[in-house]
Amino acid sequence: MALPKLDKNQAFFGTFIHSKSLGELEYLHNAAICVDRSGTIVAVEPNCNQQKAAETLYARLGWSLEDITITMSRDKRQFFFPGFVDAHVHASQYPNIGIFGKTTLLDWLNTYTFPTEASLASLPKARRVYTRCIRQGLAHGTTTAAYYATIDVNSTNLLADLCYSMGQRAFVGRVCMDHLGPDYYLDESVDHSIAATQATIEHIRSIDSGFELISPIITPRFAPACSGEMMSKLSEIQKQTQLPMQTHISENVNEIALVKELFPDRKSYADVYDAHGLLNEKMILAHAVHLTEEEADLIAERKAKVAHCPCSNSALSSGVARAARHAKLVSNHLIMPGGALHDLSPEERDKAKLSVEEVLYLATRGGAQVVGLADKIGGFEVGKQWDAQLLHTGVVPDEVAEDDYINYSNVDIFGWETWDEHIAKWVFNGDSRNVRKVWVRGRLVHELVLKQDG
Amino acid sequence: MALPKLDKNQAFFGTFIHSKSLGELEYLHNAAICVDRSGTIVAVEPNCNQQKAAETLYARLGWSLEDITITMSRDKRQFFFPGFVDAHVHASQYPNIGIFGKTTLLDWLNTYTFPTEASLASLPKARRVYTRCIRQGLAHGTTTAAYYATIDVNSTNLLADLCYSMGQRAFVGRVCMDHLGPDYYLDESVDHSIAATQATIEHIRSIDSGFELISPIITPRFAPACSGEMMSKLSEIQKQTQLPMQTHISENVNEIALVKELFPDRKSYADVYDAHGLLNEKMILAHAVHLTEEEADLIAERKAKVAHCPCSNSALSSGVARAARHAKLVSNHLIMPGGALHDLSPEERDKAKLSVEEVLYLATRGGAQVVGLADKIGGFEVGKQWDAQLLHTGVVPDEVAEDDYINYSNVDIFGWETWDEHIAKWVFNGDSRNVRKVWVRGRLVHELVLKQDG
Repeated sequence: MALPKLDKNQAFFGTFIHSKSLGELEYLHNAAICVDRSGTIVAVEPNCNQQKAAETLYARLGWSLEDITITMSRDKRQFFFPGFVDAHVHASQYPNIGIFGKTTLLDWLNTYTFPTEASLASLPKARRVYTRCIRQGLAHGTTTAAYYATIDVNSTNLLADLCYSMGQRAFVGRVCMDHLGPDYYLDESVDHSIAATQATIEHIRSIDSGFELISPIITPRFAPACSGEMMSKLSEIQKQTQLPMQTHISENVNEIALVKELFPDRKSYADVYDAHGLLNEKMILAHAVHLTEEEADLIAERKAKVAHCPCSNSALSSGVARAARHAKLVSNHLIMPGGALHDLSPEERDKAKLSVEEVLYLATRGGAQVVGLADKIGGFEVGKQWDAQLLHTGVVPDEVAEDDYINYSNVDIFGWETWDEHIAKWVFNGDSRNVRKVWVRGRLVHELVLKQDG
Repeated sequence: MALPKLDKNQAFFGTFIHSKSLGELEYLHNAAICVDRSGTIVAVEPNCNQQKAAETLYARLGWSLEDITITMSRDKRQFFFPGFVDAHVHASQYPNIGIFGKTTLLDWLNTYTFPTEASLASLPKARRVYTRCIRQGLAHGTTTAAYYATIDVNSTNLLADLCYSMGQRAFVGRVCMDHLGPDYYLDESVDHSIAATQATIEHIRSIDSGFELISPIITPRFAPACSGEMMSKLSEIQKQTQLPMQTHISENVNEIALVKELFPDRKSYADVYDAHGLLNEKMILAHAVHLTEEEADLIAERKAKVAHCPCSNSALSSGVARAARHAKLVSNHLIMPGGALHDLSPEERDKAKLSVEEVLYLATRGGAQVVGLADKIGGFEVGKQWDAQLLHTGVVPDEVAEDDYINYSNVDIFGWETWDEHIAKWVFNGDSRNVRKVWVRGRLVHELVLKQDG
């Protein structure tokens, strides 16, 4: 099936902010963006309002007024921003967020990950977990996600169905692992891994034939859990289909030692993937915390992509490598006294810290590059698709009441902030209370409803 | 004035959780806690419900049913927890939360801190900032705060008034700085620092004569901004009044170099305070990131207290030293490859990481010790005061709707979690949406109202 078109054309008015370059945001005030029924941006107009649009813009686009849905950002408290791209999400581990205790990677897998993933072979349970995972992502402005599901085909297909019906742009990967996993959670053979991967690809083709919203993604879990033969066969599928791929690399020092033991003939962890044909521009490598210089060079040469995962790295103490906010704080740690980069000069240290502008770039255009969609999403340009969020930050009233108990959000704007400061306060203090509306491919897929649940 | 008594006695029923020791939480299920009209806990009853309480407990306390307000925690989704103690808050810098950019401590002071603090000499502006700061603290469960205000006496007194009327337990410090600050924000003389400090002490005495809810706190900003004479005179006031004190120490390496330059005769930063009579069991030292072993020994010998400040340290890249959650993540960084404590053995590394139980202890009983209130707050025991919060975490429905857009909170409980896991998910994902009610000294000072602000 091809994706359905939207009922109406759309015009958005107000303030639009997006990344111009890695270090710079562009602010478009009093602007208009028009989005057609395929969800594509067809006009970005500075100095435009509803009257001007009605007078000239719509005519230029061949639009008639009754066919247009209009959305405004209101005053200085609201702005449109590109949706966030999360290049690495274990949807199946959503129930375990925050349960890290004193574990590091390898015992986390055995204690929490594998039992939870295995249990999602129950479709009612998988539906409950995945629905909430997708909703929380959308509610936080994540319009695109690259998901790991589980080894179960039906459950993986359900995740794809839910992303499609809930409207999130997604890469959905059936996890391949034929080695070293627990007996109760392991592909029984290489052929099983391959057949199961193909079954999910075919299922996604049946719901979204052009992979326009939902795409399969070939997903060998990580080298310690994959036989060489399985990786080679996945590489063949990838060469035939040109589908994206994802795996983990060099997240934890014990994991690296294990890879060395399992693949004694390979020069490095990265070389294991390269030798099995998995290292190319379609590969998303998650974590990549402890790469050697040679590995980094090899990955760069093969044009493979890296997903950063700062929240997971901190929680599991894997290294310094949720969210844009946490990436910023983690980068600050690098240059502290005692941090790995503290020996740099003060100027180099300042460069090593990620700025607010840089983390926002990474969360939008950077993420789009990693998942191979840089031409489609990540910024507000004609030809790109309308994957966007409307942000709202509270303004503290001039006469604020002592008994005002309303829980607006944690972003308190007083009105004297510059736009840069306003954005910094949003990045540092914001959460899903600030995300008022979310669109993917022009479709409104989330709208904030605040309510107490009992 | 003495504090007014509450209208009624109170009984709380349900699940109560508090720290038993640094590493262990105690869970009291199906329990009751009774709080009298002075806000003091007079009974902690395991295995008790409303009927049992009506039959025996109230009679034992000499209470009649019509004089009791009852509050329940409902099922597994709600529990009572002691209020949090924040041992170091710059109320006057509340508008700058999140605006850290690429700054480190000393330029942060000149660029953001001093101009903002100076501007709060305007009382309407100070009221707006302080009201919101106190409300956000209460909304997040912070029942006690040790505040730095500004050098302005009227504005500092206003902060004390607002804490009193809004019901937050607070230490309110008029900032003393007669050295090195900008011309527009500096005490004109030692005598001025001392007179202004005494004026704030007298003001607080006029609103809360026993310092039962609001206490003055003697506040030399930090050694670089204080003359030796001023510090010695503040020490005299402290010896006469036995009031608590607060200052900063060893937050940043450039700051430490500056102290060495300004006080060449002193052995260390800690020795500067000790030599001026400021290092005793009533002193709260904020940050203390880069202490030498000798300084740590001196501080321990003098029984001075340390406030940790992990959020600020990360944001300003000061070192490794918001919130309980961030303390945990920061401690994880210490033991990572490249982290300052990575050379420890795996067992020692596990010990160096703060556990969920430990950060909760630090945020309650630990904070109470630091501010000198360990006998009054921090846990649920007879004789302690009812400074508490009622937490609520959402339960994902068995059949969750794909179009359920309601923004409950980020803590999604599925129902299969153990209590330890439930608490870990709250610590890692929780925010003010989970804080339903907050009491200080038995008075209900916050109750969640969820509403969109436009």
